[in-house]
Parts: sequence; C-alpha cells; structure tokens
Amino acid sequence: MYDRDAIDAILDEGLVGHLAFTVDGQPYALPMLYARRGGEIYLHGSPLSRLLRAAAAGAPMCLTVTLVDGLVLARSAFHHSINYRSAVVLGSGRLVTEGEEKDEALRLIVEHAAPGRAADARGPSRQELKATAVVAMAIEEASAKARSGPPIDAPDDYALPVWAGELPLALAAGAPVADPRCSVSEPPAYVEDWSRGPRK
Amino acid sequence: MYDRDAIDAILDEGLVGHLAFTVDGQPYALPMLYARRGGEIYLHGSPLSRLLRAAAAGAPMCLTVTLVDGLVLARSAFHHSINYRSAVVLGSGRLVTEGEEKDEALRLIVEHAAPGRAADARGPSRQELKATAVVAMAIEEASAKARSGPPIDAPDDYALPVWAGELPLALAAGAPVADPRCSVSEPPAYVEDWSRGPRK
Repeated sequence: MYDRDAIDAILDEGLVGHLAFTVDGQPYALPMLYARRGGEIYLHGSPLSRLLRAAAAGAPMCLTVTLVDGLVLARSAFHHSINYRSAVVLGSGRLVTEGEEKDEALRLIVEHAAPGRAADARGPSRQELKATAVVAMAIEEASAKARSGPPIDAPDDYALPVWAGELPLALAAGAPVADPRCSVSEPPAYVEDWSRGPRK
Repeated sequence: MYDRDAIDAILDEGLVGHLAFTVDGQPYALPMLYARRGGEIYLHGSPLSRLLRAAAAGAPMCLTVTLVDGLVLARSAFHHSINYRSAVVLGSGRLVTEGEEKDEALRLIVEHAAPGRAADARGPSRQELKATAVVAMAIEEASAKARSGPPIDAPDDYALPVWAGELPLALAAGAPVADPRCSVSEPPAYVEDWSRGPRK
C-alpha cells in the first residue's frame, strides 16, 4: 500500500520505530522514539551518537514501524503468519538547529509517546537543548504492508483436526507505578487511560 | 552489555525482529519472524525476496530485537524515556539448503512464535519447502541495551508538583479467535496461555 493516510496512521500509532542506517558498509537497525509532523519524522538523541551525526549529514535512512496485531495459527506450519501493520519510510535527514522548530519537535516526541504529557512536564533548559540533537527525516518514499484476518490454509488441510485461528496481540499498559519520590498522589488521566489504538 | 545470556534472553523473548540490510547504498529495516539456535538466528521468506537473496549471498546484516517494557514519565521533558531491553546482532547469512537443518529451522520458527505449536501443525510438503528460503545468520557481534526503573530527574525538579513514574507496557494476548472454518471447539493450552515473559 502506498496510501499516505494508511502510512501516517501506522506511524502515529507506533511507539518505537527501528531506524536503519549504514556505517562503513555495515547496516544497523536501532530502536528510536520519534514523532511525525506532516511529511517529516523527528528523531532525537545525543549529539555525539554515530547515528544522529550520520542522520544530520544527510545519509540515507529507513524508519520502520511495525504494529504486531496477532499470531495467525494455521493448520499447516507453512501457512502460519502474523497479523501486523508496518510502515517503511525512506528518507534522509537534516539537523534541526535551535529555535522554534527544535522546541516543537521535542514537544511532539513527548506527545507522541504520551499524549497530554507535554503540558505537564517542565520544558527543556538551554543546557538540555544543547545536549539533545534533533534530526528531521523527510518522508521521501514510503510504503505499508498489513495482514489481518484468519489463516488461509491449503484446501485439503481444512479437514485436519487442528485448532486454527488468531491470537490477538497488542501493546498493553499495566497499572502506573509512581516514582518512590513522587509527591502527587494520583496519576493523570492520560497515564491511567493510555492506550495505543489509532490516534484520534 | 555484551553478556551472551542476556542477549539470548532478549532474542528468545522477542517475537518480531527488525533486519537491517543495504541495497545499492540504501539501508532498509524490515520486520521478520525468526528463531535462535545456539549462536545462529534463522530467518525465512520467499526465495524471490530481495532480502533473502542478499542474506543468502552473505551480505552484512543486523537483526535488532526490542522489548518495550514501559514509558518513563519524568518531571522534565528531557528526562522522559522508555524502559526497554534491546539486542543488536551483527552477522552475515548463509543459505540453508534442503535437509534436516532446514526442517528444524522452520520448526523452530513456528515454535519461537507459539511454543507448542509445531507438534500440532502439519509439517511442510516438498513443494512448500521449495517455496521457502531459510537463511542462517551467525551471531558474529552482539550487544544489548536496557533501561529499567523510575525516572531520574534533575535534583531541583523533584519538588515540581508533577506526577512521575512508570507506565508498564507489554505485548499482551487477547482471547483467541477461532477461524470460522475451525472444527475443533477449544483452543489448545499453549494458545490460551500464550505469554511473552522470559522463556523457561
């Protein structure tokens, strides 16, 4: 699928993406928090990281976000699969220098992980901004893949006396655990109600 | 961390990994089911896929498995993080040709996703074996990273009246959904009880 709305929906629902980049011929994939704004994806990290330096220099990259929706248990080993939605984005980065865009990018990364949080958290100091590199990756090429629904077995296999179906899977939240040094008694609603369905 | 037991535990608990590889200078990360056996990781796919052909030809690759354990909500935006465990494995592949090793690799991939399933599912036919390429990736270099525990805030921020703590996250299973054409009434225990804690 190349439908941008479908791709954006996957990017917005995902929490952690995997960023692929190459250093001296060796490809790497590293887990990254991120946020999308329009046709760009913001990434952040240490200004000293190999990844962020390569990204800021415009190296080709790939950000892949995969939502695992379930196991597909077929009657044959061959037709086992998973239900999932994934988006693969190709693009190159540019360093976001200090100013409004960088502030907004960092705000969006917090909001992406925990919508509602940015208004409560103390914003970055000048020193913290210096200690954080932000890279914007343009979505130059993107595609999505998905599988859903029951297993598709070979016709003869439907007669086998084997249970077949789906086991739905999702990233689920447990009960919030307060920091032992937290003086506020109740977690906010956006923490209590955090869930990772499609973003409204 | 470079401790092999810690790395193996992450690889064994993960369900989907992201495989990074480079084609004509463009890095890609693609989600993959996999299984570990000792110091090797088995991957499978269509014999026609660009990825499997590159992997079989010995191209350098990286398989990264990330377990998301929770959101870390600090008082400052800067100290927000996630709790996670990830393993990054570098290695190159070799094609696994037909025979006992290929049979076992495919069995292990099913078992990795749903332990207990391989004994119930019909094994691959000769034609299905031909339609599946298996690549073994040697774990040539591997490292793990992890974060756990509450947020670590800047000393002055502990006085802020902001709730802080962790929101535990995990891949959780819902109720099994039988294939509408399934004639077996009850799902097996390994489906009902599927969970993705550390493997015993």
